[in-house]
Amino acid sequence: MSKTSNRINAMQFSPIRKLAPFADEAKKKGVHVYHLNIGQPDIETPKTFFEGINDYEGKVLKYAGSRGIDELVESFIKYYKGWNVDFKPENIMVTNGGSEAIFMTLFTICDVGDEIIVPAPFYTNYVSFAAEAGVKVVPFITKAEDGFHLPTKEEILAKVNDKTRAIMLSNPGNPTGVVYTKEELRMLGDIAKEKDLYLIADEVYREFVYDGLKYTSLLSFKDLEDRVIVIDSISKRYSACGARIGMAGSLNTEVMGQMMKLAQTRLCVPTIEQFAAANLINTPASYFEETNAEYDRRRNILFDGLKKIPGVICEKPTGAFYIVAKLPVKDAEAFATWMLTDFNKDGKTVMVAPAAGFYGVDGVGLDEVRLSYCLNCDDLADAMKIFAEGIAEYKKIEK
Amino acid sequence: MSKTSNRINAMQFSPIRKLAPFADEAKKKGVHVYHLNIGQPDIETPKTFFEGINDYEGKVLKYAGSRGIDELVESFIKYYKGWNVDFKPENIMVTNGGSEAIFMTLFTICDVGDEIIVPAPFYTNYVSFAAEAGVKVVPFITKAEDGFHLPTKEEILAKVNDKTRAIMLSNPGNPTGVVYTKEELRMLGDIAKEKDLYLIADEVYREFVYDGLKYTSLLSFKDLEDRVIVIDSISKRYSACGARIGMAGSLNTEVMGQMMKLAQTRLCVPTIEQFAAANLINTPASYFEETNAEYDRRRNILFDGLKKIPGVICEKPTGAFYIVAKLPVKDAEAFATWMLTDFNKDGKTVMVAPAAGFYGVDGVGLDEVRLSYCLNCDDLADAMKIFAEGIAEYKKIEK
Repeated sequence: MSKTSNRINAMQFSPIRKLAPFADEAKKKGVHVYHLNIGQPDIETPKTFFEGINDYEGKVLKYAGSRGIDELVESFIKYYKGWNVDFKPENIMVTNGGSEAIFMTLFTICDVGDEIIVPAPFYTNYVSFAAEAGVKVVPFITKAEDGFHLPTKEEILAKVNDKTRAIMLSNPGNPTGVVYTKEELRMLGDIAKEKDLYLIADEVYREFVYDGLKYTSLLSFKDLEDRVIVIDSISKRYSACGARIGMAGSLNTEVMGQMMKLAQTRLCVPTIEQFAAANLINTPASYFEETNAEYDRRRNILFDGLKKIPGVICEKPTGAFYIVAKLPVKDAEAFATWMLTDFNKDGKTVMVAPAAGFYGVDGVGLDEVRLSYCLNCDDLADAMKIFAEGIAEYKKIEK
Repeated sequence: MSKTSNRINAMQFSPIRKLAPFADEAKKKGVHVYHLNIGQPDIETPKTFFEGINDYEGKVLKYAGSRGIDELVESFIKYYKGWNVDFKPENIMVTNGGSEAIFMTLFTICDVGDEIIVPAPFYTNYVSFAAEAGVKVVPFITKAEDGFHLPTKEEILAKVNDKTRAIMLSNPGNPTGVVYTKEELRMLGDIAKEKDLYLIADEVYREFVYDGLKYTSLLSFKDLEDRVIVIDSISKRYSACGARIGMAGSLNTEVMGQMMKLAQTRLCVPTIEQFAAANLINTPASYFEETNAEYDRRRNILFDGLKKIPGVICEKPTGAFYIVAKLPVKDAEAFATWMLTDFNKDGKTVMVAPAAGFYGVDGVGLDEVRLSYCLNCDDLADAMKIFAEGIAEYKKIEK
């Protein structure tokens, strides 16, 4: 009987969802699970999105153009003008979320067997997108003790060979919450020029920076214009993950021109979501101010809670809404599982994501977890107390 | 400077859209263009779709589950019960249109370099989906004179080698409008069993059969259950092309289980479109009766109009809403272009799709065109008169 392909067999199921059955079991037993394991914001989607749905007036829900509807492309152009980037329609491709933008970018610049280098820990799905495109992800390690900032230029160059086509990174970072400095990005740009690489800049968390930090986009380096392909999305910026609206953007018109072949292949992106997304540009600035302030409060609660726990190592993240912490345990996945199967305090427990799955390399990050701050402040404070108790108890019984 | 990949450079831009600039020029000159070149229905999308949008009540537009929202999966299960197919949720994957279902299926059952055999002429994007998956499409030719029915078993077997993983076909067919008989499908099933192949059954035009013909789905063969992967979509059935909602379905749970890895990779399909699509199951039967009757009227006008033209060879298609006709010209693309750049009758002309692009083989179908009947009857009748005049004039001047 026919089998499934070697390449699909080699792919992983989502490590972020691996522990879900244990959480379900806990809930069946009546335990309340605080979810710090997923990156699904609980912030309300702006009303502008839902108002935008009403902008669709057609009686026939036709295919849209492959690049995306004019209104949405124009709204992205307007958004990027705010970041001093002068995109024209030819520089933009609307995609099914940042997810599709990454696959299309990899396919357009890499042949099967090519490689990309990525700072680890990274968003686990990078490996899956690459597998779909027949591309290999080569990680270079960043460390909790360094706040997950980049290693030296030499350490990064050591990962580059003649199959390497690009450096890909998320900035601000998932899962680490790092915000790379201008100097770090300049270094990556220098490497890209020396080794003739593209820079795939996943900047979907761009608005989420704290402590008055000034964010630097890879799009701001004029000498890198032909190399930078930005990956963007409305998922996090506007808490609209379910819309699946994103984009790939680049001032390299040859890349974007070729990418059109892939866009034509799947015809277009869903129409109604596009009309909704096109109206998001009208979201008042107060939405971002309030959302950032809320995430900042949560960041403080999370970090303060973690620092109180003996043996936990982490730096305070300056962006996104995640933190990766090294725990005083041998096996973080075993610990995270135990928190669901064996532990509760007053009928409550906490679910976190083991970070080993974010490294793309065996044997690294085994004692680390990613926590997201997608819970309101009161629940988050309670969750941190319970988490501390869980670690204390686990250390007593850990083999 | 970095280049784009060999594989993207090798892909074609959409041949269906290749003549679009000439149409734009004609319109700028004030010529009215009757569009018989694209498969975008003009039938109104059922109200049930737009009512379904209102079923989304969330304030936060969250990621949905990777398989698809329960309501939509259940609606597909209910739809397939009507065709005597007993799907469970594990047999279904909601996708971004039939387009994504095809890519996911190819990736799940084929490794890079594997092959699929396909009756030609076929939907041009099959080659693009295959290119994205690193898979080769090997066509076997069907002919206008035969109404595009299948050749002999021997001719088909001659295309099978040790890299062949599946037979893929659309039934009813795009671009031909063929509806394969039960005997033809049985033959394909026998080939699939003898050579251990999958059968990828693109049945998106399933409802559109005429002349009281009984449609046979590949899903109806019990001994082929583990081999058949059906590709489905709401695009044509409900004239909702812009929604990008489709599905892959199979009773082979190993295939569908592995496919989940790809679904998890892109997280989920757009949420709002799913709620809208889930309500389509409540569309009254009268919608289909009226739509079929309308397409049947148009089919007659189109076929009768073509048969009046000296030298045109075609059989009356029994399904979908297309016809491929052989014209008394040397180069159908040159003719189709000339119809836009040099011809008009009383300020009107007709745009058709050259069929060579649907064969996947050089040198075949050079004198053929695909016409779709996505125009109302009056316009279609007028278009056929103009088309006849165009051919008559072109024959006089053709070099």
